[in-house]
Amino acid sequence: MSSCEFESLEKSLESHLPEAELAEMKRILYGKETKKLALPACAVEAAFKRDFELKGYSFEAAQEQLRMPRRIRVGLIQHRIVLPTDVPVVINAMHNRVGEMVKVAAMCGVNIICFQETWTMPFAFCTREKEPWTEFAESAEEGNTTLFCQELAKKYNMVVVSPILEREQLQSTLWNTAVVISNSGNVLGKSRKNHIPRIGDFNESTYYMEGNTGHTVFQTQFGKIAVNICYGRHHPLNWFMYSMNGAEIIFNPSATVGALSEPMWPIEARNAAIANHCFTCAINRVGTELFKSEFTSGDGRKVMWLGSRTPGLSRTRDGLLVVEMDLNLNRQISDKWSFKMTGRHAEYAEELTKAVRHDFRPSIVKE
Amino acid sequence: MSSCEFESLEKSLESHLPEAELAEMKRILYGKETKKLALPACAVEAAFKRDFELKGYSFEAAQEQLRMPRRIRVGLIQHRIVLPTDVPVVINAMHNRVGEMVKVAAMCGVNIICFQETWTMPFAFCTREKEPWTEFAESAEEGNTTLFCQELAKKYNMVVVSPILEREQLQSTLWNTAVVISNSGNVLGKSRKNHIPRIGDFNESTYYMEGNTGHTVFQTQFGKIAVNICYGRHHPLNWFMYSMNGAEIIFNPSATVGALSEPMWPIEARNAAIANHCFTCAINRVGTELFKSEFTSGDGRKVMWLGSRTPGLSRTRDGLLVVEMDLNLNRQISDKWSFKMTGRHAEYAEELTKAVRHDFRPSIVKE
Repeated sequence: MSSCEFESLEKSLESHLPEAELAEMKRILYGKETKKLALPACAVEAAFKRDFELKGYSFEAAQEQLRMPRRIRVGLIQHRIVLPTDVPVVINAMHNRVGEMVKVAAMCGVNIICFQETWTMPFAFCTREKEPWTEFAESAEEGNTTLFCQELAKKYNMVVVSPILEREQLQSTLWNTAVVISNSGNVLGKSRKNHIPRIGDFNESTYYMEGNTGHTVFQTQFGKIAVNICYGRHHPLNWFMYSMNGAEIIFNPSATVGALSEPMWPIEARNAAIANHCFTCAINRVGTELFKSEFTSGDGRKVMWLGSRTPGLSRTRDGLLVVEMDLNLNRQISDKWSFKMTGRHAEYAEELTKAVRHDFRPSIVKE
Repeated sequence: MSSCEFESLEKSLESHLPEAELAEMKRILYGKETKKLALPACAVEAAFKRDFELKGYSFEAAQEQLRMPRRIRVGLIQHRIVLPTDVPVVINAMHNRVGEMVKVAAMCGVNIICFQETWTMPFAFCTREKEPWTEFAESAEEGNTTLFCQELAKKYNMVVVSPILEREQLQSTLWNTAVVISNSGNVLGKSRKNHIPRIGDFNESTYYMEGNTGHTVFQTQFGKIAVNICYGRHHPLNWFMYSMNGAEIIFNPSATVGALSEPMWPIEARNAAIANHCFTCAINRVGTELFKSEFTSGDGRKVMWLGSRTPGLSRTRDGLLVVEMDLNLNRQISDKWSFKMTGRHAEYAEELTKAVRHDFRPSIVKE
């Protein structure tokens, strides 16, 4: 069986395990079961017609005495590219496809939607080619794609997180950036990818540098959100600092390959949610993208650019995941587990400040 | 099926899944397959006779040109208590059982062995009782248990990590401490539990306080090791700082209950290994411990003090896990993935220093 035929972990477990064992397995692998969310028939039908997967789940918090529930719905979109990589650049190529998926998200009552990393283009940063790929770069504030997202935001009263390849107009610098658009249609701001991979062909640092927007959190009508782009998921301090700035939901739009890091996907975002008492939402693109200059990974083996998975969605099909979450859950979990309160952050600030000095002497005991 | 009958995730998968799907499932869940380690027949026989599980695996690194492989073997021991909790305190109660398990570890060529959290006693810190449990506390440097471990260390030329309840003689302060004994038999030092749970009945802070030994790393003949005790596994900064001080292997001896946190076990230690380019070894005790004063969890429900699992060992039986690891793998992984190099630690030191101030103003953008 090739790995592209393996549709999802859940499907495989569900088709083979006896019921009681399945329940215990799911408890160990996934924790408390998330309830399925009933989605409107019109949305289910529209997703079927447009050939993408649609799934819904909900996280419930306990009823509190003083705070009303803060139930909101988040939508996560994964999709393949729609044009082959050898046709001329079309900036709007993906707009239609994603537009129809957002329409379905709106039917499902989604308040905040997040697209995959550099969603408007093939993920070409692992090739040796710069042209024509950098032509997909746009202004975060005034580019076509931002204008398109502003329309969606206003039309559906939805916060839109739109990760693009950004060209900063003044210096023509490229960045890997998520544009955050308020449900009013205004650009709330942007968050640039903080950590850039330098792994074999995933040496994206020839395209853009480490972001300079720090760990900004965006206060939206539906909660405080932040965007940790792709490789930043490997850095626990990155998640942590978004959380220290108050993020209730941290999005992690990615573009990566199953053969390279798939075993880490179920671990890193979940670990960040556990450690920081917040929601984390991970997205990866799907599909196969072929490039003219076939490329190799850093270790000389060929890389398979294969379909990849978000938890709960197929590893191979376009899809929309709708998640209802009561943001009250964050504080409830924090009050119970106290990882922030017991975090001794001041001590770490001191230790880390010493540890980053060039003349740092590590605390090592020898005989 | 009650959860105590569910012996292990691996066993359940192996008995139900078709071969090809099992392989793909294991790749996604566990990453690259660890090879089984051939263990000597005498050890297998001894473990069988003494009724404990024995398993061996190995992590292989690539052959380098300038460095010889640094293959070492680590042993991890999980066990139940041997005396019921209503008999008089016997400091040495566990010594025999663990002694015979260490003997088998020696047959398997183990260089560094680690026992479970406060291994000499029932894990009573969740009861309301202080007596007689605090009588198990011993000096880290001169207690009976340390003397016993020094003998083992010398006899088997083995580094011994012995987590005990420590009584600091001068101030009669209690600590949750791991004593690290060199293979020469000398006490190399100690590492105290850095983060203390305050979760319902897991409010251990009435017994001991946050440790004051920082993130000391112990340079042994077989590699640089550190000990992150129990609840410290929830704090990514804790793992991180041990690693910043040079740890190649971080042990995580624990005592916790499956119903409470089992879904997190496969995540946190693995995430730490990924993020910090090092080996992490997690141990939990097994068995059922009953206490006179039956206790409830913080949310008013009864807590089941049920068997718990280390990856690869049974959730219910005593066991010894032997793992061969080539420590060269750490630098190889680091050179490939570069999470340290791309970590931007100096920026985090600055940000964190600001974030821990009482007048910190988080970086939040509003419309």
